[in-house]
Amino acid sequence: MKISKPTLLLDKEKCLANIKMMVEKAKLYNLKFRPHFKTHQSAKIGKYFKDFGVNAITVSSVQMAEYFARNDWKDITIAFPINLLEIERINFLAQKIELNILACNIESINFLKTNLKYSVGVFIKIDTGYHRAGIQSENTEEINSLIETISKNSLLKFKGFLAHDGHTYNAKTKQEIIEIRSQSNENLRLLKKNFINDFPELIISVGDTPSCSIAEDFDGIDEIRPGNFVFYDLMQYQLGSCKIENIAVVLACPVVDKRIDRNEIIIYGGGTHLSTESIVNFQNQQIFGVPILISQKGWSKPLENSYVSSLSQEHGIVKLNSQIIDEINVGDVIGIIPVHSCLTVNLMKDLVEISELENNV
Amino acid sequence: MKISKPTLLLDKEKCLANIKMMVEKAKLYNLKFRPHFKTHQSAKIGKYFKDFGVNAITVSSVQMAEYFARNDWKDITIAFPINLLEIERINFLAQKIELNILACNIESINFLKTNLKYSVGVFIKIDTGYHRAGIQSENTEEINSLIETISKNSLLKFKGFLAHDGHTYNAKTKQEIIEIRSQSNENLRLLKKNFINDFPELIISVGDTPSCSIAEDFDGIDEIRPGNFVFYDLMQYQLGSCKIENIAVVLACPVVDKRIDRNEIIIYGGGTHLSTESIVNFQNQQIFGVPILISQKGWSKPLENSYVSSLSQEHGIVKLNSQIIDEINVGDVIGIIPVHSCLTVNLMKDLVEISELENNV
Repeated sequence: MKISKPTLLLDKEKCLANIKMMVEKAKLYNLKFRPHFKTHQSAKIGKYFKDFGVNAITVSSVQMAEYFARNDWKDITIAFPINLLEIERINFLAQKIELNILACNIESINFLKTNLKYSVGVFIKIDTGYHRAGIQSENTEEINSLIETISKNSLLKFKGFLAHDGHTYNAKTKQEIIEIRSQSNENLRLLKKNFINDFPELIISVGDTPSCSIAEDFDGIDEIRPGNFVFYDLMQYQLGSCKIENIAVVLACPVVDKRIDRNEIIIYGGGTHLSTESIVNFQNQQIFGVPILISQKGWSKPLENSYVSSLSQEHGIVKLNSQIIDEINVGDVIGIIPVHSCLTVNLMKDLVEISELENNV
Repeated sequence: MKISKPTLLLDKEKCLANIKMMVEKAKLYNLKFRPHFKTHQSAKIGKYFKDFGVNAITVSSVQMAEYFARNDWKDITIAFPINLLEIERINFLAQKIELNILACNIESINFLKTNLKYSVGVFIKIDTGYHRAGIQSENTEEINSLIETISKNSLLKFKGFLAHDGHTYNAKTKQEIIEIRSQSNENLRLLKKNFINDFPELIISVGDTPSCSIAEDFDGIDEIRPGNFVFYDLMQYQLGSCKIENIAVVLACPVVDKRIDRNEIIIYGGGTHLSTESIVNFQNQQIFGVPILISQKGWSKPLENSYVSSLSQEHGIVKLNSQIIDEINVGDVIGIIPVHSCLTVNLMKDLVEISELENNV
């Protein structure tokens, strides 16, 4: 394949190594591994996981659950507050596969009592400090009320408690991520202790790539659901979840203009390809990606003192160091490591393996 | 149609009024109107323009040019630095339609001399202060060199100078936008004066919705290419380009959780639907959208003291005022006015007219 427009490249070896690493970490800590597939949304990448023996997955919408069910996945948790307006499609899925859904409030449970036609597993979403959806772990009254209502219905099988510690993404240090994991574990262990006698099979399930990558304390946890680790990205690198060489995707972009007075190149590759997510890097610059050089064998380390300084709909501006800019010309292809691979993959959809490239890079 | 997942709604009347306004403004100032179609990327919305007598358009990629050429548009400017790697597709288009391309540097012109097979119009991209692609207007030496090379080739027809004053998006006041337009006009008039004797048909073309919406000085300008005005959005409202009631699209989102202790609802609608673009509003809050109530007849004014405070991949958190939160329940649908309609429409693709809705909103 010859690159002629923004193209998302996959380094399969890096991707497989990331999957292997997390499979082994789950084994080491005796955790069920239910990876989140929202990062790749791809049946092909899904197969890589199957080859490592993974058979249960997480998704974040009914639509994704349907896609992976069509691709032969039979045990799926939709880790998103149940959307009552999609009850017909949920019923259809529940008839075909082992489906777990997420309950955050009594209104949803009451609705299911009337409208559910097939058996589903129900996790109660616990808010362990991220403050998005779910019930705060100390709110045992609300939790009790939900479990009681669930237990009275034969189609609703209470599975356990599910948390997503998304606040690890705001952490400033690895230590802070470790502390968030430990604090969350403590809250969840307390819940487990309260309910394990009545529900001996109850599961504690946690997510988030930063803590699953970094933490070593999983005391009381039964299942992990990280997603982003399959590709990683600049944000994860910045958080300390991975090394820069673990990042398994880059966006290949044609160079369309060169402004040597500003040490900048203009690329075909913008917010509609990378997303407009940015991070503040270790040099305190707001950046939208980091440039690398691509060859058929893979890609280089990040170019020193170089970064994507701005993105519009289709354009990107890349600041380059003054040595490298001499070597790059209009009509060349340059690679950009994305800030947030989930959003980039969602925009690009297709992944091209680096080995499929022809020699124009 | 019944809403069950994030759905982009169009108020056709508002959209038509926006088109009519800009058509009339162009007429008033004797400007050729070549609207940018990157905002909607839709053949259907394109037809609305045709009904107003528009027959020439702007796009920002070869792919978009191909799409609109297939939909019977025969006069298209690709207002993006020519991507040499797509020369085959450019040749194919140039054979079929009146195609204008954008040259930013001598390398591109030299490449075209060898590789172009059919006649194209060439605009030289002038950087009037935005500092993305293009040649700075005072750099007459580089401009001269480009024009000379273009003139020597029979397939390259020099059309004029094209600028995009994207720095209007960073303006703090309407006055600042007006000054950017006037300064840019002055630079472009000077260029026109230098070259009009040799090229009596030369065109000065400018873009950007803020200045096309607000400014009244178009002295020396021949053509305008605004795009965003077709829908407008919160960013344009904030800049003073439009009134809040001119915004013609909202994202309808199911409510999936309600956290009354924090005056927040959680919606199914995140960065993969709205994009993660944010603005700082007049109350100095970073916001990702503004909630409204939807009915079959249209949508309400923005809910007071309410805004989208955070977005993740599929979730949004909406802060509501304490009166309104009592009226909204899990399973309802709420509308969100997007920060940047170009990016939201690019993610959502399909638009549903508000008149097509069934009574579940």
